[in-house]
Formats: sequence, structure tokens, C-alpha cells
Amino acid sequence: QKANQLQTQKDTDSQKLQETETRNQELEAQVVELEQRLESSQIEQENFRKSLRSLLELLDGKIFELTELRDSLAKLIEGS
Amino acid sequence: QKANQLQTQKDTDSQKLQETETRNQELEAQVVELEQRLESSQIEQENFRKSLRSLLELLDGKIFELTELRDSLAKLIEGS
Amino acid sequence: QKANQLQTQKDTDSQKLQETETRNQELEAQVVELEQRLESSQIEQENFRKSLRSLLELLDGKIFELTELRDSLAKLIEGS
Amino acid sequence: QKANQLQTQKDTDSQKLQETETRNQELEAQVVELEQRLESSQIEQENFRKSLRSLLELLDGKIFELTELRDSLAKLIEGS
Repeated sequence: QKANQLQTQKDTDSQKLQETETRNQELEAQVVELEQRLESSQIEQENFRKSLRSLLELLDGKIFELTELRDSLAKLIEGS
Repeated sequence: QKANQLQTQKDTDSQKLQETETRNQELEAQVVELEQRLESSQIEQENFRKSLRSLLELLDGKIFELTELRDSLAKLIEGS
Repeated sequence: QKANQLQTQKDTDSQKLQETETRNQELEAQVVELEQRLESSQIEQENFRKSLRSLLELLDGKIFELTELRDSLAKLIEGS
Repeated sequence: QKANQLQTQKDTDSQKLQETETRNQELEAQVVELEQRLESSQIEQENFRKSLRSLLELLDGKIFELTELRDSLAKLIEGS
């Protein structure tokens, strides 16, 4: 009778363990997926910033060229 | 003897279940943390884009004003 | 006879003098007109330059504002 | 006596004619000089305008390039 009772408990525990292990695998897969999404989001953001830095350099160039143009206009007005 | 053997197995299973449940809790905490990081990264990125959109509007204004200035210069050159 | 000759010469001289004086008045009017055109041309040119100086100041303002916008973009890229 | 009087008048007229002719030559030289100044002022002004037109074309180019940069920024903000 004791053995029977123990067997029943053992079956219940075994089932609970299996469920918990299944949940474990699901959670591990979720962690991997979230880490990948986070990493790809960071790569994306870094590429975004790189593109913005390129635009910033272009903007610097345009401001420099506008300043040269401004100086030419100033010389033209005063010099001739 | 059978009962003894079952008791031993039960103890082993019970320990394994406890370990798996502990690991489960750790993984659940990790998922929550990763989801929070992902969400705050998305909020940050959206705020970044909002700030960039404000700058874009400012740039539009400057280009418009430069075009007005250009038109004034054109009229001045041809008109007088 | 001498008096007659002198009278003729005097008439010729008088006519020539009159012609020369008429030409003189024409030339003086021409000088006045040219001086006025030159003066109004100089005034016009000075007004032209004043308008150009105003445009130059506006251009300075736009370049300054573009530089501020550029700095905001730089801070946004690096800071967040 | 009449002849004498006429001779005197003739001398006066002759001197006046000479003075007027001298004044004439001065005025003609002044007209030539003023016309040259006016012409060179007009050439100068036309060259000034030509230089301004070149600057206007440069400004058009800069505005066009800023607009391209603005479009790149807009695509970057919305597209990625």
C-alpha cells in the first residue's frame, strides 16, 4: 500500500518535472529570440547613426561651401 | 526494498524538479528583463526619430528661407 | 575801303562768336546732363550695394542657423 | 576814327572768340572724359552683375544639394 502510494506520487512528480522542463525549453527559446532581437535592434541603430554621421559630414560640407559663397559675395560688394 | 528504492527515486526526482523550477524562475526573470530592455530601446529610438523629425522641419525652414534670399538676390540683379 | 573790309571781318567774327557761344551752351548742358547721369548712377550703385549688404547679413543669419541645426544633429547622434 | 574804333572792337571780338573757343575745347574734353567715366562705370556694373549671377548659380546649387540632403534625412528617419 505504501509502495502503491509512493508509485502514484512518483508518477505525479515525473509528470510535473516533464512539464517544467518543457516550459524551460520554451523559456530558453524565448530568451534566445529576445537576445537576437535586441542585438539586431542595436546593430540597426548603430547603422542608423553611421548614416546620420555621413549626412552630418555632408551638411558640414554644405555649410562650409555656403560660407565660401558668403565671403565671395562680401568681397564682391566691398571690392569693386 | 521496493519501497526503499521508490523513496530514493522520489527524492532524486523531487530534487531535479526543484532545480528545474529554480531555473524556470531565473529564465522568466531574464525574459522580463529582456522585454523591458527591448521596449525601452524602442521608446528611445522613437524619441530619437521624433527629435530628428523636428530637425528635419527646421532644415526645411532654413532651405525655404535660403530660397527666398536667393529670389531676392535674383530680383536685385535683374531689376535694378 | 579799309573800314568796309574791317566791317565785313567784324561781321564774320561776330557770327563765329555767336556760333561758338551756342556750341558752348550745348556743351555745358551736355556736361550737366552727364554729371547728373554719373551721379544718379553712383547713387543707384550705392543703393544696390546697400541692398546686397542686407542680403549678406540675412545669409550670415541663415549660415549661423544651419550651424546651430548641425550642432543639434551632432549632439542627437552622439548623445542618445 | 571810325576805322580805329572798328579795329578796337575787332580786337575785343577776336579775343572773346579765342576765349570762347578755348572754353569750348575744355568743355569738349570734359564731355569726352565724362562719357568715358559713364561707359566704364556701366561696364564695371555689368561685370559686377555677371559676378553676382555666378554667385546666384552657386547658391542655387547649394540649395539644391541641401534639399537632396534633406530628402536623404527624411528617408533615413522614415525608412529604417
